Amino acid sequence: MKKAVILLSGGIDSTTCLAIAKHRGYQSHALSFNYGQRHNAELDAAKRIAKREKCHQHQIIDISIGNFGGSALVDTNQNIPAYSAIRKDIPTTYVPARNTVFLSIALGYAETISATAIFCGICTIDYSNYPDCRPEYLSAFNKMAHLATAVGLKQQPIQVYAPLLYLTKAETITLGQTLGVDYTTTVSCYAATSDGLACGQCDSCGIRREAFKQAGINDPTRYVISNNDC
Amino acid sequence: MKKAVILLSGGIDSTTCLAIAKHRGYQSHALSFNYGQRHNAELDAAKRIAKREKCHQHQIIDISIGNFGGSALVDTNQNIPAYSAIRKDIPTTYVPARNTVFLSIALGYAETISATAIFCGICTIDYSNYPDCRPEYLSAFNKMAHLATAVGLKQQPIQVYAPLLYLTKAETITLGQTLGVDYTTTVSCYAATSDGLACGQCDSCGIRREAFKQAGINDPTRYVISNNDC
Repeated sequence: MKKAVILLSGGIDSTTCLAIAKHRGYQSHALSFNYGQRHNAELDAAKRIAKREKCHQHQIIDISIGNFGGSALVDTNQNIPAYSAIRKDIPTTYVPARNTVFLSIALGYAETISATAIFCGICTIDYSNYPDCRPEYLSAFNKMAHLATAVGLKQQPIQVYAPLLYLTKAETITLGQTLGVDYTTTVSCYAATSDGLACGQCDSCGIRREAFKQAGINDPTRYVISNNDC
Repeated sequence: MKKAVILLSGGIDSTTCLAIAKHRGYQSHALSFNYGQRHNAELDAAKRIAKREKCHQHQIIDISIGNFGGSALVDTNQNIPAYSAIRKDIPTTYVPARNTVFLSIALGYAETISATAIFCGICTIDYSNYPDCRPEYLSAFNKMAHLATAVGLKQQPIQVYAPLLYLTKAETITLGQTLGVDYTTTVSCYAATSDGLACGQCDSCGIRREAFKQAGINDPTRYVISNNDC
């Protein structure tokens, strides 16, 4: 059975990617990171989802890049910026080179277990201006990855797939529903409580809430305050 | 003062790279990894070297990629292969995607501290057939890195330099000597003892010993057995 590594953060995109990989016939090997993020709610969500979706394996890699600081997602002295529907700058939640670090580790994992694919949920539409969510970045990573690995020299190299790259978040949710994804336990919030309640204020909460509205699907998110329109 | 991140493993190449970065006028920020390697002697060496060379900062990143296995360097159930002067295969000491993981983390560190350069000691001459030590790999990594970072969008992107890429190990040692590098405390051995004694048998020991011979420089390596020609 062909194998895939799936970057699983526990949010909407990565959970949908996992469903897509399974739908395409891959044995799924989920990969999550404990990198010094502000809260563990997303890791708890990833664990629940990997278990529920019967992933063949779920690796959680500890990596102390949070020590560098440089982002509101790892530095509790910085405030998480509030949601802005129109954003032209790169917000302070950007973690320098995070996708590159995660994809590189996924590449090592994939080569070790002889997986031929890596699935990641990056998206160039409803994203937060992060440079490492663009198609040209993904293409460059794949070229580099083919040259980086022993398997790339010998046979079909490991390919990174980003099936949501050109989908809006609403389209991702709609697709996920057709694949039977249960979004109830996913956590997207940058500042979730330890039991997974979302703040309802940050970029990630704002994008998620708008997406459920646009998709015409009931938003299952559990917010800290019960009024979802706050 | 311009800043550089230097990948510092504690061996000959990375120690020479540190000297080159300093010689080129960079403030040096050393970066080492505790990734589940077989021994800590190289990390101890890196610490000593960073201190002696007065690095502005020395970050040691814990990263549990050793959990994946897949290499004799992280899996103590596998034997370290003996030195072979002529090697056409990729030896079992290859750690899948290791250079990519290390360079990616260096990229994040560099962006966080506004460094414009990363120095790494990869070398395409006296190497062990690792795919991620080739010029085409380095070039592809740089292209990817320019697209991966916020700083790459705005101004001069972060550049990875591999000043030893086309040098033999003997040439590297000779260059290092002109820059005042003290190789006494460096550790290259794949199977060093906890106090830094080299096995004298592995690929890395073999390449190192030959290099000192070719450079006509007294080999300062402390071997487990005193006869260096064993």
